[in-house]
Amino acid sequence: MSTVSFFSIVQDDIGLVEQRMRAQADERNHPDLSAALDHLLSSGGKRVRPALGLLVGRMFDAPLDKLVSLGAAVEMLHTATLVHDDLIDGSLLRRGTPTLNARWSPAATVLTGDFLFARAAKLAAEVDHLPLMKLFAETLAVIVNGELTQLFSARGLVSRENYYERIYAKTASLFEMSTRAAAMAGMASDDEVEAMRIFGYEIGMAFQIMDDVLDFNGDQSAVGKPLGSDLLQGLVTLPALYYAETHPNDDDVRLLKDGGWGNRERMERLVGSIRESNAISLALQEARQRIDNALSVLEQFPISGERNALTELAGYIVDRNS
Amino acid sequence: MSTVSFFSIVQDDIGLVEQRMRAQADERNHPDLSAALDHLLSSGGKRVRPALGLLVGRMFDAPLDKLVSLGAAVEMLHTATLVHDDLIDGSLLRRGTPTLNARWSPAATVLTGDFLFARAAKLAAEVDHLPLMKLFAETLAVIVNGELTQLFSARGLVSRENYYERIYAKTASLFEMSTRAAAMAGMASDDEVEAMRIFGYEIGMAFQIMDDVLDFNGDQSAVGKPLGSDLLQGLVTLPALYYAETHPNDDDVRLLKDGGWGNRERMERLVGSIRESNAISLALQEARQRIDNALSVLEQFPISGERNALTELAGYIVDRNS
Repeated sequence: MSTVSFFSIVQDDIGLVEQRMRAQADERNHPDLSAALDHLLSSGGKRVRPALGLLVGRMFDAPLDKLVSLGAAVEMLHTATLVHDDLIDGSLLRRGTPTLNARWSPAATVLTGDFLFARAAKLAAEVDHLPLMKLFAETLAVIVNGELTQLFSARGLVSRENYYERIYAKTASLFEMSTRAAAMAGMASDDEVEAMRIFGYEIGMAFQIMDDVLDFNGDQSAVGKPLGSDLLQGLVTLPALYYAETHPNDDDVRLLKDGGWGNRERMERLVGSIRESNAISLALQEARQRIDNALSVLEQFPISGERNALTELAGYIVDRNS
Repeated sequence: MSTVSFFSIVQDDIGLVEQRMRAQADERNHPDLSAALDHLLSSGGKRVRPALGLLVGRMFDAPLDKLVSLGAAVEMLHTATLVHDDLIDGSLLRRGTPTLNARWSPAATVLTGDFLFARAAKLAAEVDHLPLMKLFAETLAVIVNGELTQLFSARGLVSRENYYERIYAKTASLFEMSTRAAAMAGMASDDEVEAMRIFGYEIGMAFQIMDDVLDFNGDQSAVGKPLGSDLLQGLVTLPALYYAETHPNDDDVRLLKDGGWGNRERMERLVGSIRESNAISLALQEARQRIDNALSVLEQFPISGERNALTELAGYIVDRNS
């Protein structure tokens, strides 16, 4: 577990979210499934999504029980998409540990993902708030649509607009849902809910941009993938887009434009060029700008322990190194 | 499309359900996905599930728009489970036509199923009724749990209780949800909702028992599978259970008990023995009994066109031959 300090104020609540998640696993009688769920639910990283919801919800005095259900729903939905993603990509490792996909049949992996979807929907329904349930269903649709777009669309050089759409679907939509739903659970006004939506959206966009930056310059032992692994698979992220914009005549950029992302040697060279260029710092700057946007939304709310912790959490997003 | 007469009273409404389903597919920009969804949504058989919901909902004067959303949600959830099932079983044919799984990558199949889940949840949320949304989430959990049980449990001879649990999860739970939710959408009283739950439950159990009977004696060209295909895969259904109960000393039954369902020749002989025994008619009798249970629940409601159509629909369940 992380010892990042913004957690301290919600550390106990996160413990409750983890209990609620584990309770979903314990209900089952299948030892194999229980073990797999335990593994999935305990390797969940830093619980940034539930922490966001808990902090926002506490700012609006939402009932703790609802926030715990919401946090567990969000984290289980997130885990469900990872399980199906790993199957789709054929990934054998995530964060350096074997995926379910690496050890199980596709059948078991598909169903475990479905199980997590079903439980996430049930937990969301427990919050007992219809607009939140609609939001949950819409977010699920956005995430799956994003995955389908990624699967069906040609890889290679895309527009920045296309990139933003993709990372919204992949990451920011769930962050946005988390903060928005937490404000709803606290019966915040429409304006407050909208402010929290923007807060979560900007944090989520920054989070994914940072992931994409770390794919180029992160601590590879923690990520468990080669440098520039996205680009090597033809997935063009913000650092590569900035590089292409500033170096339109680079031979490797031209090759990428012409669909040549399958040329491993040339793409490895392009990864190196990107790492040495200012594209990384441009992408980093954009992530920081989005964090600033999020923080300026926060300023309209009175100072509180929760607000301070949210500020810290936002800072952590762009300062982490894995 | 079927021309069975109980449809006539809701034929137009079913047209609306199909439109609503198709609208989910048309929103997408991916021609491959649109084509696949069109294929899936147009090969949906007789639309028994939406017809049930529409008829029950009309009995309670539920708003048509909500019933259409509900019908589309139920049918899309059903389709989603079929898509993932075919992937899990590795099935290449369903009702004699190629499955998505036969023509697509596992990735596309997983995501298409997820897409259908997401859209089903969104449609259910459109009914705008929190208890219905909870029911939807619970039903999804029941269905997935059933599939997990089937995957993780040993095959071979099971208890009848185990069989009933399995077919409830697989089939009756969605029928039950359909009738119960339709009554809810009509603001029926708790007693009426419960009556409709039982009605849907018994119809659904009978429906699956009939499917299992037809696996032994149905029109194989329509089913697209060999006779006794479930048993040949180690899946023991009601006819086999009745046969085993009445012929405990049959050599092939003993073999099945000892886990020998992998012996193709012996299992083919067992299929023949079951077909020639009274096990088929015992199972058929049970299906008819369940239909009678359902009809006796209906009797407490005033005679109406909808009630008559539901009676007809119930009769059709046990009289169909594919």
